[in-house]
Amino acid sequence: MNIGIIGFGGVSKALIKLLGDKSEYLYNLGIHIRVKYIIKSNGGIYNNLGINLEEIISNDFNLNIESLQFKEDININTIVKNNDIDMLVELTNTNIETGEPGLTHIKLALENSINVVTGNKGPILLQYNNLKKLADKNNVKLGIGCTTGGALPSINVGTFDIAGSDVLSIEGILNGTSNYILTEMYENEVDYDEALNKAISLGIAEANYNLDVEGYDTASKILILANVIMNSSLTIDDIKIQGINLLYKSLIINEKKNGNKIKLIGKIYKEGEQIKAYVKPEVIDKSHPLYFVDGKNKGVLYSTDTLGDISVIGGASGTINAAAAILRDIINIFCKEK
Amino acid sequence: MNIGIIGFGGVSKALIKLLGDKSEYLYNLGIHIRVKYIIKSNGGIYNNLGINLEEIISNDFNLNIESLQFKEDININTIVKNNDIDMLVELTNTNIETGEPGLTHIKLALENSINVVTGNKGPILLQYNNLKKLADKNNVKLGIGCTTGGALPSINVGTFDIAGSDVLSIEGILNGTSNYILTEMYENEVDYDEALNKAISLGIAEANYNLDVEGYDTASKILILANVIMNSSLTIDDIKIQGINLLYKSLIINEKKNGNKIKLIGKIYKEGEQIKAYVKPEVIDKSHPLYFVDGKNKGVLYSTDTLGDISVIGGASGTINAAAAILRDIINIFCKEK
Repeated sequence: MNIGIIGFGGVSKALIKLLGDKSEYLYNLGIHIRVKYIIKSNGGIYNNLGINLEEIISNDFNLNIESLQFKEDININTIVKNNDIDMLVELTNTNIETGEPGLTHIKLALENSINVVTGNKGPILLQYNNLKKLADKNNVKLGIGCTTGGALPSINVGTFDIAGSDVLSIEGILNGTSNYILTEMYENEVDYDEALNKAISLGIAEANYNLDVEGYDTASKILILANVIMNSSLTIDDIKIQGINLLYKSLIINEKKNGNKIKLIGKIYKEGEQIKAYVKPEVIDKSHPLYFVDGKNKGVLYSTDTLGDISVIGGASGTINAAAAILRDIINIFCKEK
Repeated sequence: MNIGIIGFGGVSKALIKLLGDKSEYLYNLGIHIRVKYIIKSNGGIYNNLGINLEEIISNDFNLNIESLQFKEDININTIVKNNDIDMLVELTNTNIETGEPGLTHIKLALENSINVVTGNKGPILLQYNNLKKLADKNNVKLGIGCTTGGALPSINVGTFDIAGSDVLSIEGILNGTSNYILTEMYENEVDYDEALNKAISLGIAEANYNLDVEGYDTASKILILANVIMNSSLTIDDIKIQGINLLYKSLIINEKKNGNKIKLIGKIYKEGEQIKAYVKPEVIDKSHPLYFVDGKNKGVLYSTDTLGDISVIGGASGTINAAAAILRDIINIFCKEK
C-alpha cells in the first residue's frame, strides 16, 4: 500500500515512528506500507520507492537534510499528477471555519480515487456528507475515526459493532478537559476556577481551552457522529450548546449528596423523523452507563433497537494514541480492500 | 447475497423475522439477502429463487406446509452439491465435546468457498484456528461474533476497534447468570443459594446453570477471545477455572465495606512469550473499568499498547439480540466484500 502524508505536526511524526515500531505487526497482517510523500505547508519530499523513515526519525524529523531532497514545489498537486498512491493521510492543522487546507486535499484525493484517512476535524465537521458521496462515487474509503475521540473507537463502534441495528440515540462524554474539571469539582469539592487552573497547570487544558469548556469541542464530535452514524445532515448551528463554564460548585455538591453526578453530555436522538442534538451539563445517576467515566476519560453510549445499549469507554489521549487511531483506520481500510 | 440457514431453533427463527423487519435497512445498504435453504436435523426446504420468509412467519414457523416442499433429503450435502450460496448461517445446537454437527457443516462450507457466520460455540471453541486457516485458504470469511457475548461486540472490538495495537490483556465479565447472582449477593446481602434461586425463578439461570456458575461458560468465551484476538492456540484444559459457586456471603459483604466488589473475571494475558488464561472470582475496586458491570450485564476490557485501555459494555441478551449479532456479522462480511 502506497501512501502520502500531508501535514507534518505531532501526529504525523508519531505516525511515522509508529509505522516503524509496528512493521512486524503489519507484515504479519500482509500489509506493506510504503510512504511515498511527506508534505508540509512549504514543500515536501517524494520517493517513488518509499521514503526511508528511519533516516527521518534519526535526523529528528528534519526534512531538510540533503539525501531527502526536499523540494518547495512538492504539494497535493504533485500527488494528483503522479497518481501513484492508494491512500492520503491528511493531518494538516484543523480550521473549523473553512476546513482548509484539509478540505481541498481530501476532495482532490477522493476525486482521483485515492482513499483518505484523516484526523482533521474541520473538513469532516463542515462537509462530511459531500465528502462521503465523493468517496462512494469514486469507490474509495474515507477514514475519520480519529476525529471523534482519538483512540476511543466511537466511529468504529457506530460503524461495525452495531451494524444491522437502528440507532435510537448516541450520548457521549467526549471532551477530556471538561470531564477532568467536573471530576475535580466533584471529588475535591473545589470551585470551577480552581479546577480549571489545575487542569491548565497539569497541561490537560490547552492554551485555548474555551472551545472545550464552552461545549464546542463536544458539539463538533457529536455532530460528526450524528452525520456519520445517524445519516443526518445537521450543522453546528442545529445544536443547542451549553458548556460547563457557568457551573457552580454548590450545584455539583448538592447532586453528589443525592448520589448523582453532573457530566457534560453531547446527545443525538430521534424525535419522530427528526434528528436533534444538544450539548449540556446533565445530572446523571449510577444507572447511567457513562456515570463512571471520570477524569480525562471519554465514552460513548449507543442505544439501539436490536442490540440493546452498548457503551465504549476509554482510549488513551496523546499524539501517539491519535497516530494509533490513524493507523487503525489505515488497517481497516486495507483489510476491507483485500 | 444468497444464504442458507442450518439449524432451526429460536435464534434462526428470530433471524428470519429480523431479515423481514430490516429489509428497508438492508436495501439502503445495498444488501439483498435471498434465503435459499432452511435446514433442520430431519430435512429442509430449498428455493432457488429465495424462500418466502413471510409465509414461514405467518405459518408460525411450520416448515411442513405443502407450498414449502419440505424434503427429508435436503441437508448440508445439498448445499455443497448445488454450490449456489455465498454464506452459510450455522445455528445448530452446540456441542462443546465434539462440536458436531456444526463442525462438519462449517468445514464443508469453508472448503467449498462459502462464507460462514455462526453462533455455535462448540466448533469455534474446539477448532477455531483450523477453521480460520481453512477460511483464509479458500478466501472466505468466518463470522463468530455471536459466540462470545451475543450482542456485546467483544470480537468486533478486538478485531476492528483496536486494529494496529498489540493486546496486552483481555478481561471480561462474560456470564450474565453469574454476574446477576453476584450482584444480588452484593446489593441485597443474601446467600449464594438465595441469589441462585432468584435467578432460576426469574428465568435468568437456565436449567443447566452449572456451566455458568462453575465458570465454564466464561472460560469458553475467554478461550475464543484468546485464540481469535491474541492468536493463541489454547484449549480449555489450559485455563484455570474457578466459579462462583463456593463464594460465601460474608466474603462479598466484607469487600463491600472496603468499597470493593467480587466479580467473576475471565482474563487472558501475556507472560513473556506465553499467553495465559484463567477464570476466577476477583476482588476489584472502583477504578476497574468493569466495576460497574452489574446484574445480567456483560463487558470486556482490552488493554493495548498504543490505544490505551478500551472497554465495551452492554448488549441485550435474548434470542432476538443473538439474531441481531448474527445479522451484524452478515453485514460486516458483505460490506468487506463489496
